[in-house]
Order: sequence, then structure tokens, then C-alpha cells
Amino acid sequence: MRSIELQGAGGTSLIALGLPISSVPDLCQGKKIAVITDGNVYGFHGDRFPECSTIKIGTGEKEKTLDTVHRIYETFLSLELDRSSFVVGIGGGIVCDIAGFAASTYLRGLPFGFVPTTLLSQVDASVGGKNGVNFQGYKNLIGTFNQPQFVLCDFRLLRTLPKAEVKNGLAEVIKHALIGDRDLLSLLEKERENILSLQEDTIEEIVHSSLEVKVDIVSRDEKEGGERRKLNFGHTFGHAIEKTMGLSHGEAVSIGMVMEARLSMSKGLLTVHDVHRIKDMLKEYGLPTAAALDRESVIDAVGKDKKRENQDIHCVLLDGIGASRIERVKLQELAEAFDDLCEHC
Amino acid sequence: MRSIELQGAGGTSLIALGLPISSVPDLCQGKKIAVITDGNVYGFHGDRFPECSTIKIGTGEKEKTLDTVHRIYETFLSLELDRSSFVVGIGGGIVCDIAGFAASTYLRGLPFGFVPTTLLSQVDASVGGKNGVNFQGYKNLIGTFNQPQFVLCDFRLLRTLPKAEVKNGLAEVIKHALIGDRDLLSLLEKERENILSLQEDTIEEIVHSSLEVKVDIVSRDEKEGGERRKLNFGHTFGHAIEKTMGLSHGEAVSIGMVMEARLSMSKGLLTVHDVHRIKDMLKEYGLPTAAALDRESVIDAVGKDKKRENQDIHCVLLDGIGASRIERVKLQELAEAFDDLCEHC
Repeated sequence: MRSIELQGAGGTSLIALGLPISSVPDLCQGKKIAVITDGNVYGFHGDRFPECSTIKIGTGEKEKTLDTVHRIYETFLSLELDRSSFVVGIGGGIVCDIAGFAASTYLRGLPFGFVPTTLLSQVDASVGGKNGVNFQGYKNLIGTFNQPQFVLCDFRLLRTLPKAEVKNGLAEVIKHALIGDRDLLSLLEKERENILSLQEDTIEEIVHSSLEVKVDIVSRDEKEGGERRKLNFGHTFGHAIEKTMGLSHGEAVSIGMVMEARLSMSKGLLTVHDVHRIKDMLKEYGLPTAAALDRESVIDAVGKDKKRENQDIHCVLLDGIGASRIERVKLQELAEAFDDLCEHC
Repeated sequence: MRSIELQGAGGTSLIALGLPISSVPDLCQGKKIAVITDGNVYGFHGDRFPECSTIKIGTGEKEKTLDTVHRIYETFLSLELDRSSFVVGIGGGIVCDIAGFAASTYLRGLPFGFVPTTLLSQVDASVGGKNGVNFQGYKNLIGTFNQPQFVLCDFRLLRTLPKAEVKNGLAEVIKHALIGDRDLLSLLEKERENILSLQEDTIEEIVHSSLEVKVDIVSRDEKEGGERRKLNFGHTFGHAIEKTMGLSHGEAVSIGMVMEARLSMSKGLLTVHDVHRIKDMLKEYGLPTAAALDRESVIDAVGKDKKRENQDIHCVLLDGIGASRIERVKLQELAEAFDDLCEHC
């Protein structure tokens, strides 16, 4: 077992890697627990949940609404939770995002922790203190920054994960390698077989390296004033593609990373060879590197991104492999370069 | 003009006393502003608002709901607010609580400030970083702790305030004196005429002293883990009375303060003389000190207070005039002593 500590404005978040789910009551200091999960996760792992009240929500992005949060508030009320209680989200990114937001806003904040059950939520969604729900079609428009008291990564929970879900997680691992850890990229190239077969030691290794990149950035900029935007690499276009094309998060971010790598190349920060290396790696992991995109709808969605300021988008550019920087790019400039970013390389 | 700084986990809050409302654009650093206010306040002071989009909500506690917050989110979206925008709540406690919660949860937090237009919100509601809305009849069940970047107290705005509203504010000023500032209590006894006629220098003096008590406590315990509970003096019973009797906040807290002073006396912390002094002062300011309360409904409401932990209520007891302490008291004990706390002194 390894652990990482993330120091946030509101307190310390303990990320425990390789600990079994049975450690949850200890991490909750023996307090009264309410678990939030979804039906799928409960079906696979419910028999290993701590003994406590369990609130089940539906599955999928369509559940990530204020209506779901309100139903959770009602259940919190009926369970008579108070500030000495503990909320634990057990599930993927959607469950963690909803559970974190509900806990952060009930009684002005109950303590909460996460047991992420997907690779994507282990390497990304559950760590960093962002929570929230969608609103009128905009992803995570409503939410807060608030660190969970703990994140417990039990790698045995990943065994029931569909292959497509594993790929979603790997897209973020690749992102972390590209923006901050060359060695992780080499490991990803070398250990593909062990990673795709979810060999526990190798998974712990890549999750640990991946989270070190993320935690290092988040601890310097919890509220996304600058540095944290680096984690958005591949997501400026990725979110817009996910929204307009109905691809999975990982697939959309994969295409977004290729586009943003090309943007970095057009600014002289990355070589053609680097871009090919990135594309090859994504393909090796079964992730898409291109799609027939509708320029107008993608650019429109980019313009509605949370990270926009006036007419500028804070773009993350790769500064060689394993390093990154943030530049303000005019929305107009992105629109003009769109075809190049999509197709030519 | 005087100012006080409140250092919160998320940043510094500047409380500017005696500054005119025309200073708002400067305090917002020239950023794009969206004002949230209510129809009453807009009617009285709208001509002095900064030039910007103004979102008007209805008046009264019934507006303090998640529905109102959702309508504000929709307007934020149509105004294309982003993280470089500034939200300013201009109004009483309800406006500030709603505006603070909407701003704190939109895009995971927009910067916001307040221009409190009632004495109650100047001395209490706008300062300290609590925000939120009611849910299923429970006051402030949903909300966050998040400091406004500024609180601007323009005392000329108080001139349009009904007398009953002035009394609401004075109940909290008296509370602050009782829990932490003997000299403020003497000033309240001495300057009653000037205070009730809203003489600006005297008002600035009592608002300043009152906020010093509050800021001192909040800066030591922003999230109400211990010390901050002192601000709840008179509110354990006060909130329950407000909820069950339909009295104004100030009236309910006034009766609550008398009951909790009697509780302090029963624990040997306050003399009969002290309790009489408190009652006399409340009466002098036209605040009630007793009411025919329904024991069952009041105790039931006390039991649902946010500050409950299991079967214990964190009660604030006066430890002499101008000092206070927190003790866990069993809900059962409060129920048994109820008649004494209500009637005999």
C-alpha cells in the first residue's frame, strides 16, 4: 500500500492506494456512514460495502443533475445525518462528483470520502476536490472545490470493469504522462500488456505516478487560477467533442489531445515526431485519434467552456513530451485553425 | 470610514464600514458585475446601483429556496458570466445568503461581494462566509462556507428601513455584546436614542464593535467546529421559536437569549441581576422577552437544529456578561427544563 497526501485549503486529503474497501469504517473514524453508489456498482460490489445506509442513484451522465442531488438531500434528512456523520461515494466519476457536491452543500458541508471503482475515477475524478453536476447541458456547471477526507483505491474493484471503461481511465493516465511525467509515458509504452490485463502491481504503479502529477499541480493551484489548467490538456476540445459527438470521455479526450498536440506543434513547441509518438500510443491503447467533427458545433461548445475568459480560451500546450504550459488563445484563432487541428499532421 | 479584514481559508474578506455604494465597481476591480437584489431594495436604492445586469428575486423567507437559486443559475448562463465576472448581492440577509450560495456553486465559485441594506445583514448575515437556502422547512439546510471578497456597509441605506427591521439587527448587536463585549453593552444602554434614530456615527460605532466580536470568533473557527458556535447564543431556542411561532428573527432570538441566559443562570454562570439586566435592555429596544410557546413543537424543532450531534445540543452559555462558553446539553435535559427557561426567573 502506498499513499499520497493532498493539502487543500480546507484540509488534507489522504489518497490510499491498494487498501481494501473493508478499511472504509476506519477511514471514517467510526462515524455514522451514508454510502452513495449506483445500481451497477452495488450489484458488483455491494456485498463488500460497509454496514450502513446506502443511497442508490441511477447510472449515466443523465443522473448528474440537481434533481438527483435534491433526492439525496431528502434522504440525508430522513437519515438524520449531522456534522458528525460521514458520506462515502462508492463508484465512478459521476457518483463521486454527485456525492461530493451533495456532501459539500448539506449543512454547509459534511465530511466525505471516495472509493473510486473505475480506473478513470481512481486516476482523475475522485482526486483534486472538484465536484458538481451538469446544468442545461453544460458539464459540471454547478459545483464546488472541496477536498474529500480520503480516497481509497482498491484495485481489485477494477476487475469487473468493461474494457471501454479501462480505456477511459488510460486516456487520463496518458494525459498526466504527457503534461508532467516522461517516465510514465515510457512505462505506458513498455507495460501495455500488464496494464491492459489490469495486473495489480503495474496498475498501482501507473495510478501512483499519474496521481503524483495531478496532486503536485492541484496542491499548487487548488482553485484553477493558473497551473491547474494544465490538467485540462486535451479537454478544451475533448469536452466539446464529448458533448457534440456523443463519444465516451476517454475517446473524446484522446481526439482532443491529438488536436491540442497539433496546436502545440503549430506554435513550435512540439515536433512532428512527438505528435506521431502520441498518436501511436493512443492507438496502441485502442483510443481514437480522429473523428469527423462538425466545426460549428464544436467551436460553439468550446466557447461555452468554463475556462473561457471573455474571448480567450486558456489552452494547454505541450512544451515537449512531459511538460506543459498555458497560453491564452483567441476563440477566433482556434476556429480558423480548426481544419488543420483536425486533419493534417 | 473604517475597515476590518477577515482571513478565511479561501482568502481575505474586506469589510468596509461607511463607504458609499458607489464604490462597488472599484471593489469589483472593474470586472463585469451581476447584481442580485430584491424588488423592495431595488425600489428604494436601484438608482444608486452600479451600471450592470440586475437579477431581481422576490422578497421574504419563502424565496430562499433551491428553485430561486436555479433561476439565478439560468440567468448567469444567459448573461454568460465566467470566472472573471463578479456577483454582488445588494439587500438583506436573504438576498446575501442566496447570492452567496449561487455565486459559490456556479462554475465552482465566482467571486462575490455584498452590500447589506439592513442593520441585521450589516452586523451579522453578510459577514462570516455562511450562505445557503432553506430546504423542506429547515433553515439554511443547504449551503456552503465561503467568504465574500468584500462587504460594503453604507449606513445611509438604513434610512429606508422599517423600525421592526432595525430591531432585528439590534437583537444581534445585543447578542454580540453579551457573548464578547461588555463595553458594547454599556454603549447600547447609554446611546439608545442615537441608535434608534440611526445617527450615522453611533451606528458605525456599534456595527464596528459588533463585527469585531464576530470576526474575532469566525477567524478562529471559520467552519463552526467549536468557537464559532458562540455566535449561536439565543439561536438554539431562537430558531425553533422563529420556526414554530412565526415571529421575526430578532424577536425570536430575543426570547431565545432570555431562555439561554436563564439556562446559564441555572448552571451557576450568571446572576439573577445579569438576567434582569439583559431582559431590561431587550425591553428598552422594544424586543420581546417571553411568549406562550408550545413545548413539544419547540423542542422538536430544537432537535432538528444543524448544531445537534447525536442527542446532544451544543448550547452557548453566558459566562458572566460579555463572555461565553459552549456546553453539550442533552436534548432531554432542555425538554425537562423548558418550563423554567420559559417562565420563571
